[in-house]
Amino acid sequence: MSAASRDEGRVTLVGGGPGNAGLITVAGLDALQRADVVVFDRLAPLSLLQDLPARLIDVGKIPHGPQTTQEAINDILVTEARKGQHVVRLKGGDSFVFGRGSEEWQACTDAGIAVAVVPGVSSAIAAPELAGIPVTHRGLTQGFTVVSGHVPPGDPRCRLDWSALARTGTTLVVLMGVKNLATIADTLVRHGLAADTPAAVVADAGLPSQKVVKAPVADIADAAAGARISPPAVTVIGDVAGLDLGVVGTD
Amino acid sequence: MSAASRDEGRVTLVGGGPGNAGLITVAGLDALQRADVVVFDRLAPLSLLQDLPARLIDVGKIPHGPQTTQEAINDILVTEARKGQHVVRLKGGDSFVFGRGSEEWQACTDAGIAVAVVPGVSSAIAAPELAGIPVTHRGLTQGFTVVSGHVPPGDPRCRLDWSALARTGTTLVVLMGVKNLATIADTLVRHGLAADTPAAVVADAGLPSQKVVKAPVADIADAAAGARISPPAVTVIGDVAGLDLGVVGTD
Repeated sequence: MSAASRDEGRVTLVGGGPGNAGLITVAGLDALQRADVVVFDRLAPLSLLQDLPARLIDVGKIPHGPQTTQEAINDILVTEARKGQHVVRLKGGDSFVFGRGSEEWQACTDAGIAVAVVPGVSSAIAAPELAGIPVTHRGLTQGFTVVSGHVPPGDPRCRLDWSALARTGTTLVVLMGVKNLATIADTLVRHGLAADTPAAVVADAGLPSQKVVKAPVADIADAAAGARISPPAVTVIGDVAGLDLGVVGTD
Repeated sequence: MSAASRDEGRVTLVGGGPGNAGLITVAGLDALQRADVVVFDRLAPLSLLQDLPARLIDVGKIPHGPQTTQEAINDILVTEARKGQHVVRLKGGDSFVFGRGSEEWQACTDAGIAVAVVPGVSSAIAAPELAGIPVTHRGLTQGFTVVSGHVPPGDPRCRLDWSALARTGTTLVVLMGVKNLATIADTLVRHGLAADTPAAVVADAGLPSQKVVKAPVADIADAAAGARISPPAVTVIGDVAGLDLGVVGTD
C-alpha cells in the first residue's frame, strides 16, 4: 500500500526487467495497468506499453544533457503526482541497479510525494542466465560483483578499486561496458586476473535477437568487436562463463 | 519456447522472487499455472502455491543431508519429466543466485531433458531496495558485490578473497550471513574497511513482517542479534546503507 490515499497523487518506481515482456513482475504489470501516467525511456521494455490506458511520457526525448535530464525527469514525476495522478516510472531491469531510482525516490520524498517501489529482474543476473551462464555455481564461485563500465578504470571519476576487483574471487559482471571493454579487461589482467579466465558478452538477452560471444578475458574485447556487439550488453568474467549447461530455452 | 514439443516432458526453472507473491514474474506465474508438477522447498514464496492445478512436491522434506538432497531433487526433476510431465522447479529469488539452478539445469541436460529458465527478482537487490537502500547510487558507488556468508572468512572452503572484498569500493551484500555476521564484519574492518561504514540487515523484505536494523559495520552483528534477526536475512554494507530516502511503500 502506498502511504497516500487513492485520491492523492503518487509515484511508483517499477523495474521492467531485461526486455522480454514476460519478465516484468506481476505487481509491476498491475501498476502499469492501473497508472494514470507512465514515464519511460528507451531502456524500458517498450512492448509493455502497448494497450495501456495510461498517458505515456517518453523522457528519453527531453533535449538536454544527462544531468539536466535527470532533474527534468524528477520534475515530471513530481508535477504529475501533484496533479493527483498515479505516476509509474518504468525502467529496464531494476530501478536501483544504475537506474537512478534512488534519485527519483529522493526527489519525490523531498517534494512530499508518496513513493512505492516494485523491484525488477536485473539484467546483471538475468542476461547471463538467459545465455546459460549462472552468476554463481557451487564449487566455482561464492559470489558475484556487478559494476558499471561507463566510467573506465583510470578515469578520475572512477570510484572502483580495479586492483581489488581483479582478486575478489567473485564472478565479475560489467554493465554498460562495451565501449570500455578493452581497457577493463587489460586492467583486470594487469592486476592479476588470469588472462585465460573465461568471459562472455551477452546482448539482447531473452529476446529473439539474443547474441552471445565467448572468449578468454584477454581476447573478449576483440571478440565482441568482431561480432559487432553494440550496447546495451552485459559482460561476464569468471569461471562460470566457461560452463556448458547445454541448450537453453525460455518458457 | 522449450526445445521439446508439448507432448514431451520438460523442466522450467522459475525464480519466485523475494517472497511477496506480486514479485514473481508474469512468465514465472504463467509457468506455475500451466505446470503438471511443481517442485519447491521452504525458501520458495509459498503463497504462490495456493490454488495451482499442479501436483506439488515439497523437496524440503527429503530426509537426507544437503549433498544427497540436491541429487535427490535432480532425480525427481528428471524422473517426472521422463513421465511426460511439465515440471516447474520453483525457487525463492533467482535460481542462479546461490540457488543451485545451474546444477539442476546440468542434471536435466545430461539426462536429455529440455530445460527453460525464467529469471526471478533476487533478494540480493530487492531486499535492500524494499528497505529503502539502493545497491547503487550515483556519487556513492558504481557497483555492488553479492556474496554468500554461509562459509565464513578463514574457513578452508572459502573461495573469496576477503581482503579484496574490503577494498573494491562496491556496496557489499551478504546473503545467508546472519550466523557469521560478526566474523564477516571483523574481517572486513581488519582488511581496511572503515569501522563506521554504514550497514543494515533486512529480514522478511517486502512482507508485512519486514524488519530492518541499521548500525555501523563494526556494530552490525550486535545490533542484529539485539533485534533478534533470524535467517533468512540480507546484510548490506556500504555508504548506501546510510542514505535516508524517506518513507517507503510497496504498491
